Amino acid sequence: VSSEPIVLRDKLAAVREHWSPRIIAEVNDTHVKVAKLLGEFDWHHHEAEDELFWVVDGRLLIQFRDRDVWLGPGELLLVPRGVEHRPVAHEEVQLVLIEPATTLNTGNIVNERTRHELDRI
Amino acid sequence: VSSEPIVLRDKLAAVREHWSPRIIAEVNDTHVKVAKLLGEFDWHHHEAEDELFWVVDGRLLIQFRDRDVWLGPGELLLVPRGVEHRPVAHEEVQLVLIEPATTLNTGNIVNERTRHELDRI
Repeated sequence: VSSEPIVLRDKLAAVREHWSPRIIAEVNDTHVKVAKLLGEFDWHHHEAEDELFWVVDGRLLIQFRDRDVWLGPGELLLVPRGVEHRPVAHEEVQLVLIEPATTLNTGNIVNERTRHELDRI
Repeated sequence: VSSEPIVLRDKLAAVREHWSPRIIAEVNDTHVKVAKLLGEFDWHHHEAEDELFWVVDGRLLIQFRDRDVWLGPGELLLVPRGVEHRPVAHEEVQLVLIEPATTLNTGNIVNERTRHELDRI
């Protein structure tokens, strides 16, 4: 009736592609995802969804139009809905994302990095 | 316009009371909480809410009516809505919980451990 333990390190180790979040758990309408990041992502915002970044490994820069925020392992940042941001990873970053199931990774833009259907991992 | 970094270790260090979750982030209708556990909790279930346990420190036993699941640091368990469970911490466990804002810590029962209003930390 209930689920199996999820070993975070194993899930992250199984991620092969950068900027392509994979779902590890569904909590009602919220998805918990893992992702690996490297390089600069695109400026975007999410119209209706808050997004929580949780760095597991590496150092992540989250740029806002008016400031930069750096996150290291064990540090989290809530990006409120509507706020433009850009994740930048100068080194590979291993990340957990907590956000509504409706969240599109590229937010209000659609390009080659957009992932419409996220697989579980 | 946006929030400050959340340092997980600092949030957990600030928790004084066992079995009393505190909110560290709100992601739309979902709360991310920290808690410290020690001892046996009460058997309960959540009628409408899935609950994700994420162990940060210590070893946590989650009992179900038909089996036991042990979680160590970096291991997560999704307890689906409606499923009876009981967390047991033989040693102090430091934990993150991800669950809908409507989730009551003691689920379908109300006793001296029930926390109706959770403070942010």
